[in-house]
Amino acid sequence: MTIYILRIDCPDEQGLVYKITGVLFHAGYNIISNHEFVDATAGHFFMRTAFAGPAAPEHVVPYLKSILPASAAVRLTTAAPQPIAVLATKEPHCLGDLLLRHAYGEIPAEIRAVIGNHDTLAPLVQRFGIPFHHVDQRDRDRAGQEQAIADVLAGYAPEYIVLAKYMRILTPEFVARYPNRIINIHHSFLPAFIGAQPYRQAFERGVKIIGATAHFVTDALDMGPIIAQSVLPVDHTYTAAAMAQAGRDVEKIVLARALQLVLEERVFLHHNRTIIFE
Amino acid sequence: MTIYILRIDCPDEQGLVYKITGVLFHAGYNIISNHEFVDATAGHFFMRTAFAGPAAPEHVVPYLKSILPASAAVRLTTAAPQPIAVLATKEPHCLGDLLLRHAYGEIPAEIRAVIGNHDTLAPLVQRFGIPFHHVDQRDRDRAGQEQAIADVLAGYAPEYIVLAKYMRILTPEFVARYPNRIINIHHSFLPAFIGAQPYRQAFERGVKIIGATAHFVTDALDMGPIIAQSVLPVDHTYTAAAMAQAGRDVEKIVLARALQLVLEERVFLHHNRTIIFE
Amino acid sequence: MTIYILRIDCPDEQGLVYKITGVLFHAGYNIISNHEFVDATAGHFFMRTAFAGPAAPEHVVPYLKSILPASAAVRLTTAAPQPIAVLATKEPHCLGDLLLRHAYGEIPAEIRAVIGNHDTLAPLVQRFGIPFHHVDQRDRDRAGQEQAIADVLAGYAPEYIVLAKYMRILTPEFVARYPNRIINIHHSFLPAFIGAQPYRQAFERGVKIIGATAHFVTDALDMGPIIAQSVLPVDHTYTAAAMAQAGRDVEKIVLARALQLVLEERVFLHHNRTIIFE
Amino acid sequence: MTIYILRIDCPDEQGLVYKITGVLFHAGYNIISNHEFVDATAGHFFMRTAFAGPAAPEHVVPYLKSILPASAAVRLTTAAPQPIAVLATKEPHCLGDLLLRHAYGEIPAEIRAVIGNHDTLAPLVQRFGIPFHHVDQRDRDRAGQEQAIADVLAGYAPEYIVLAKYMRILTPEFVARYPNRIINIHHSFLPAFIGAQPYRQAFERGVKIIGATAHFVTDALDMGPIIAQSVLPVDHTYTAAAMAQAGRDVEKIVLARALQLVLEERVFLHHNRTIIFE
Repeated sequence: MTIYILRIDCPDEQGLVYKITGVLFHAGYNIISNHEFVDATAGHFFMRTAFAGPAAPEHVVPYLKSILPASAAVRLTTAAPQPIAVLATKEPHCLGDLLLRHAYGEIPAEIRAVIGNHDTLAPLVQRFGIPFHHVDQRDRDRAGQEQAIADVLAGYAPEYIVLAKYMRILTPEFVARYPNRIINIHHSFLPAFIGAQPYRQAFERGVKIIGATAHFVTDALDMGPIIAQSVLPVDHTYTAAAMAQAGRDVEKIVLARALQLVLEERVFLHHNRTIIFE
Repeated sequence: MTIYILRIDCPDEQGLVYKITGVLFHAGYNIISNHEFVDATAGHFFMRTAFAGPAAPEHVVPYLKSILPASAAVRLTTAAPQPIAVLATKEPHCLGDLLLRHAYGEIPAEIRAVIGNHDTLAPLVQRFGIPFHHVDQRDRDRAGQEQAIADVLAGYAPEYIVLAKYMRILTPEFVARYPNRIINIHHSFLPAFIGAQPYRQAFERGVKIIGATAHFVTDALDMGPIIAQSVLPVDHTYTAAAMAQAGRDVEKIVLARALQLVLEERVFLHHNRTIIFE
Repeated sequence: MTIYILRIDCPDEQGLVYKITGVLFHAGYNIISNHEFVDATAGHFFMRTAFAGPAAPEHVVPYLKSILPASAAVRLTTAAPQPIAVLATKEPHCLGDLLLRHAYGEIPAEIRAVIGNHDTLAPLVQRFGIPFHHVDQRDRDRAGQEQAIADVLAGYAPEYIVLAKYMRILTPEFVARYPNRIINIHHSFLPAFIGAQPYRQAFERGVKIIGATAHFVTDALDMGPIIAQSVLPVDHTYTAAAMAQAGRDVEKIVLARALQLVLEERVFLHHNRTIIFE
Repeated sequence: MTIYILRIDCPDEQGLVYKITGVLFHAGYNIISNHEFVDATAGHFFMRTAFAGPAAPEHVVPYLKSILPASAAVRLTTAAPQPIAVLATKEPHCLGDLLLRHAYGEIPAEIRAVIGNHDTLAPLVQRFGIPFHHVDQRDRDRAGQEQAIADVLAGYAPEYIVLAKYMRILTPEFVARYPNRIINIHHSFLPAFIGAQPYRQAFERGVKIIGATAHFVTDALDMGPIIAQSVLPVDHTYTAAAMAQAGRDVEKIVLARALQLVLEERVFLHHNRTIIFE
């Protein structure tokens, strides 16, 4: 029996859960799990329901839209792996971890292709039998390179684009093509170190914790809604280089976790905030 | 406006969320937050709803019981502090932390009394203006001592009884008087060390993590449903005594956390399992 | 037998450990524990040695200074509790935790006095029988208030001054009176949120981790060398207020940990960096 | 310039650090980092020194042995990758993570071969160009199978043998061939669950933390000295299967961490205890 995931978000009003579960109940579906959350500050309602039933639920979405507030977002998917593409540059740690999890079925994704602005990671990707595309930034201006990437992506129709340490800033025009569909990872500090060589600065202030943040990419560089974060402890015996290694370790774990949450349709966005039903 | 907490658990069947939210909707209540969970293995449904509305909801519980499966447990409370009593022996770390949180309003509890089988902690308790009762175990046999404790408790009508390092095993008879209302804390290891002097054993195997487990007390000693757990890292520079200090630090944090969850009506029990809506 | 703590830091050169341990060896002392670290980047040497022996080691410090590089810092103390004073404002969580640990002997400190710029916390402090001084900022200009605090401190001769959520910025002149002897705690985020209402900003970006940083106070506000850091996880169900509560929980743990490390003479400073021998 | 790692452990006596550092000092070596620890309970001394210098230090070990207590263990290595072999069964998570870290130089090891008692993992290993040997347990009795494994291992001369979820118990005879050179990983719980189906038991008691323990293999099954441990949080929404997935995630991180510590010569053993200089 197929499992369906229904996601709804809309301005809050009385009786929403009652209405929505009523639709599923009367249509004969069996709710497997259900999460809702009302952001009381924003007056906004979020709901994720997994359900199973006898027939395909094409009629459910239009009917729900007809009874919910006009601005309601309603999305219905099956719990199947979703197609993704990965962009990377030279560092293998995040990409390698994704390839491995993909190879043994630990993430609900189908990695259709990897695109690099350098060719450094081609051998690693080929080991896993995944297409690798080298879109060399030296051959093109920025607009040309982004267009070339978009052309490659178009051939694979990915649902999400994962920046696995893709070290080039994307233009707002590129980001606007894939709204809330690009996921990025970067190291983070507690407190932050602004400017060049953050690990050097962290080292020089004797920082004790290194972290990583996975987020959706928006126009504001590295300021998009946060999906997942984690940390690792370090101490004075760590050189700036060893701190960077700890940063890589935590980056790969956090990126995999964020991707899992997104692919399982557990992440909602509201302005710059994430609501995550784990 | 008063906030109410409605808790329901019953065998799962289709339409439960629909039915329950319908009752609240039609009665004019506004749902503030809502959690449900279906334990698919056990076929059991759990729901916690916080709601507010114009009038007192006396009629809600009997009506819900009339439309839910016969074995449904339905509990309605307000989000007010609940009365508790604390049992302790000689160690001050858990008791002191509770008294402090209580003094500055960090836990939704009213600590009505502390009972000690020794009088060691009387000065600490009196500093906070809370009644301390010394029920000396040397003056009584076990049954007599437990009866004396029960007599003291009866005068305070606590909703929950917290064992803050109460170092005497309670009889099944005593436990049966307060089913699922006694909360205990103990240190835990990864893996476990059975027998005497666990910190000595942990030290001798070079253990790297010390933990604590808070649980409801059942007949099976230290085997009741787990409410909260946490850990602290240790290393070879820790003596067995320093490991025990780390154990105390994590115990006090975990006990406070567990108590908070219980008092906020977030903890459900199903056989020996906890379902916790954080 | 008394246990002594010897701390040395100086520019690195060959044979330092050999020379220093030779002095202790020939004088008949028994080394109990020994940590050294060479910061290879800075070319600087740090050493902490705990030792015991038959007689008081007055002669050790001048002799060591005569054989070590001229700029060597050499400090010899006993492993006894050190006098401290605490400055606080209105929030009780850090102060209360320190008072409690002090009351049951968990930190090697003697809290001689608490000074408040408000009188809110006087009852809490008096519960523990510690002198409380209200130095009301409304009665004095900034210089006058800091002088009044310094006058109170002078009467207690604290080795360290702990800012347990003291919410007034200290002037460079005040800080200069107690170089590397003032310890502060503040919440931290991953990544940082600059400006007013950081918990509000953290909430609005869907932050998943709340942290705290304890550091020595320097002229640069909240930018001094880091002594300890820790974090707690949060999620979208946390309001900005609940995130602030998590912030308070982690602040009190981190401040106590930092103070413990400092009082046990485990923390060295080198420019803005800490070297910590745990 | 080559970096050397000197490891010494022996019964404690006065002046050991002085003697050892004197030998290196007079021979013209420059100490890069130095850790010592005295287990005061056991009266035993441990020291790890990294140093560099003009010429190969062949003379250092015999000279040190001549001046140290007769039972002193003295080991001198260079900081080069060490050869290892991996034993696995059917689960890919630990093996895959090691192959990936190996492929991009994150662990100081040369994985010379992987041996499987099943052939399930052959394709994964071959992707990384590492020899895979299938030593089928169905073709041989236990002694015969262990002899066949030993024969394969002999051809590769590994310094350490890593059990990456090798699901067959090794006999004391096999373990005795590689004393303190076999590293194992297994999940761990807080508290422990004895007997079959531990994840099922953990689920049924509502466990909140899943952990993993990496240890040296000794005669006592899963009771050898602990090298590394870590944990991940879980909750009631985790099925027993999801708890097992969390267990796999933490196992792979802990095994890699333990292997790193061992290969960098940071782990000392004393009876069943580890002393680890991180």
